[in-house]
Amino acid sequence: MSDKKKKIYKPTPVSGFPEWLPEVRKAEQQWFDHIRRIFEQYGFCNIETPSVETLDAIMAKGGDGEADVDKEVYVLERLHKEDGDKEARLALHFDQTVPLARYTAQHFNDLVFPFKRYQMQRVWRGERPQAGRFREFYQCDIDVLNVDNLPLHFDAEMPAIIWEVLSSLPGMENEKIQIRISNRKILMGLLEGLNITDEEHITQILRSVDKFEKVGKSIIIETCLSLELENGKEIADKIIGFVETVDIKTLEPLSDTMKEGIEELSFIMDQLAHLPEGAAVADLGIVRGLDYYTGTVYETNFVKEDGSLDLDYGSICSGGRYDDLASSYIKKSLPGVGISIGFSRLFDRMRVQGKLPQSGISPADVLVILPNEDARSVMNETAQTLRSRGYNVETFHSPSKLKRQLAYAEKKGIPYVWFPPFDADGAHEVKNMNTGDQVAASAEDWTKDD
Amino acid sequence: MSDKKKKIYKPTPVSGFPEWLPEVRKAEQQWFDHIRRIFEQYGFCNIETPSVETLDAIMAKGGDGEADVDKEVYVLERLHKEDGDKEARLALHFDQTVPLARYTAQHFNDLVFPFKRYQMQRVWRGERPQAGRFREFYQCDIDVLNVDNLPLHFDAEMPAIIWEVLSSLPGMENEKIQIRISNRKILMGLLEGLNITDEEHITQILRSVDKFEKVGKSIIIETCLSLELENGKEIADKIIGFVETVDIKTLEPLSDTMKEGIEELSFIMDQLAHLPEGAAVADLGIVRGLDYYTGTVYETNFVKEDGSLDLDYGSICSGGRYDDLASSYIKKSLPGVGISIGFSRLFDRMRVQGKLPQSGISPADVLVILPNEDARSVMNETAQTLRSRGYNVETFHSPSKLKRQLAYAEKKGIPYVWFPPFDADGAHEVKNMNTGDQVAASAEDWTKDD
Repeated sequence: MSDKKKKIYKPTPVSGFPEWLPEVRKAEQQWFDHIRRIFEQYGFCNIETPSVETLDAIMAKGGDGEADVDKEVYVLERLHKEDGDKEARLALHFDQTVPLARYTAQHFNDLVFPFKRYQMQRVWRGERPQAGRFREFYQCDIDVLNVDNLPLHFDAEMPAIIWEVLSSLPGMENEKIQIRISNRKILMGLLEGLNITDEEHITQILRSVDKFEKVGKSIIIETCLSLELENGKEIADKIIGFVETVDIKTLEPLSDTMKEGIEELSFIMDQLAHLPEGAAVADLGIVRGLDYYTGTVYETNFVKEDGSLDLDYGSICSGGRYDDLASSYIKKSLPGVGISIGFSRLFDRMRVQGKLPQSGISPADVLVILPNEDARSVMNETAQTLRSRGYNVETFHSPSKLKRQLAYAEKKGIPYVWFPPFDADGAHEVKNMNTGDQVAASAEDWTKDD
Repeated sequence: MSDKKKKIYKPTPVSGFPEWLPEVRKAEQQWFDHIRRIFEQYGFCNIETPSVETLDAIMAKGGDGEADVDKEVYVLERLHKEDGDKEARLALHFDQTVPLARYTAQHFNDLVFPFKRYQMQRVWRGERPQAGRFREFYQCDIDVLNVDNLPLHFDAEMPAIIWEVLSSLPGMENEKIQIRISNRKILMGLLEGLNITDEEHITQILRSVDKFEKVGKSIIIETCLSLELENGKEIADKIIGFVETVDIKTLEPLSDTMKEGIEELSFIMDQLAHLPEGAAVADLGIVRGLDYYTGTVYETNFVKEDGSLDLDYGSICSGGRYDDLASSYIKKSLPGVGISIGFSRLFDRMRVQGKLPQSGISPADVLVILPNEDARSVMNETAQTLRSRGYNVETFHSPSKLKRQLAYAEKKGIPYVWFPPFDADGAHEVKNMNTGDQVAASAEDWTKDD
């Protein structure tokens, strides 16, 4: 209320923190509703965890495989922290798996196992800003955890659910995607059979296998040679032959671990036989970076028009099985399997490609116009009647020119405009904005055109 | 995969960051769905903004009335920030009004006005931890912004919508609440009429009026005397008489501003005449702390059994009109009116009082059991058929003892258990877990009991 001259702070987008206009947000809501509906159809309950964990809890997972994750964490500071405040440091979660592990451990006695939950929240990664990378984004995860033992049946359920979700997301119907599945026991068992036991060697080879499909054979050969393994070339050939295997039934197990992996993967592929051709395939080149996966691993890619995978774009939905997820937080064996849709990245791809469903800005089905000030109570009553019958209804706020009120409905994408009587002798009418048809109607029994 | 002995980090709740068990989260989802449905029935579109704003954007509002807000802001730091990173400082938003103002300014050319939006996101306040105070919580806001001029009609729509939401929230049906409405022009106009023009005096008096209903008359008298106003006692009496006014139509305007305020408030109360007795009342004692309100102001309280307001608990839904909301970000006049439900606090109250709807842990309507391993494919097909008909269905993962499978349904609150045939001659049966009735059924046409 003061007269001081105000400084204008001109807002600009913050790199990595996406924000949508209402019409895009409406499509995003449709996506969330769709995903939620299918997750719930399979009996997954929802949880949310706080946006933060203590830094200790987040770092408890840390370690070997996730070497870079700690670089990506945002920590919170109170702007005006008083000296002597002794609070645990808090950090925004960078995924939903660490919070799930912590949640399951913390509430262990109050949960029913197998604990099947879905979670659709924002996560944050404090990376340096760069084009196309989000620093705040949504993930949609399903996981199942059980005590001591988790049937393999769940490993097969994950890709079946994800296939159903992704192939029917509004706007995704014409996209071709492929879920690729492997089992880390196969590759680990192969290395075991080849007498490669040094942890550093294993890590290097896994990395080269991970890069194989982008870089080609050379990366595996170079790695094996650089490690100065005995029979390096021979080992490289074995690994290449392995990664290129199309039919896992032809694989000859070199160790018990490898045999177990092949059996598990075969079981899962059999369970997925009902999916369309090419929807889910076994692919031994799938490694996944995170070290906690111990069996099944999943990646999902777009398939290009020529039938090849869109590897430049990377996986849109990944996950796997972990035998040891919550062991940082509780002395229990809690094997689990889970999969995560990188929601925001996928949604943004469809947005940029102009493939999102278009249904206007307003959620309203009907705009009831205000012909003149005397009609205000009739307008309000009409709107209330329609709302009580389940319709979403906007009213126009002032008795402006009809043309202006119609333009408002048009701009907001409201499909029907309702005309209350202009005078005592008049009747209610409804205009279908798509067809232009205008007919007499009553709020008590009107229904949308088909 | 290493054999290093793992350190267990025992997780404990972080003060101020609520987290619910699945059955409570299910009720929370019901609440969000309910609120969203009604907001959309009135044609409000949804937006979300990033969790962060630049510190500059958040502070641009700052200033007079919100003196303490900057103390409550959480700023983000990347854990491993490299020297030389020159990024704008980011802070978590502490409400949804500042982000709305920034959003409207930033996307001004892409929005359709009047811009009616709802927003249901988490907000953060980095207060010192104390019992019952959340540091992360949900708010559910509706606001309308327009260019240059916003009809008073919207000021009346806000409490009507909020009444519909709050009086029908699952579990709130038996609670009595009251929306109290005032107009700051009335009180400001009264002070004008009393020749109180010093800004510091006005602030002090507004504060005393704000405390009046908790502390009593004395606070107003003391304040007026301490300000050493001429006729301090007389002025105090005038103000007390004013605050205690029950029928605004009896008020005698002392200035044009006051007259305007009375007319506006009268118009709004007339528009709300259709609400039940006591749902919305004019109450001149309502001030609201934030200085950007310039007209209508709202507060909402629980009404105790004896008919008095539960003032200890404070307002569950507040807001008002602001003529000047986005002026920190854009050189446009964007008057608005809005109201905000303090979702998490209200939800937690109902939770603590045991009044939330109880509908089990699982979203599933049906658990299809697995009588024996041979029946797995029948189980899966039955589940898929039911899902395709819109039911939420869990399957049991292993052919455990029947008792165990039934106990699982019981614990998860799944209302129906489906028995696929135990052998080739058998038939499908469904058990209603509430009534205990078990009948033959077919997945193609089964429906829930009423």
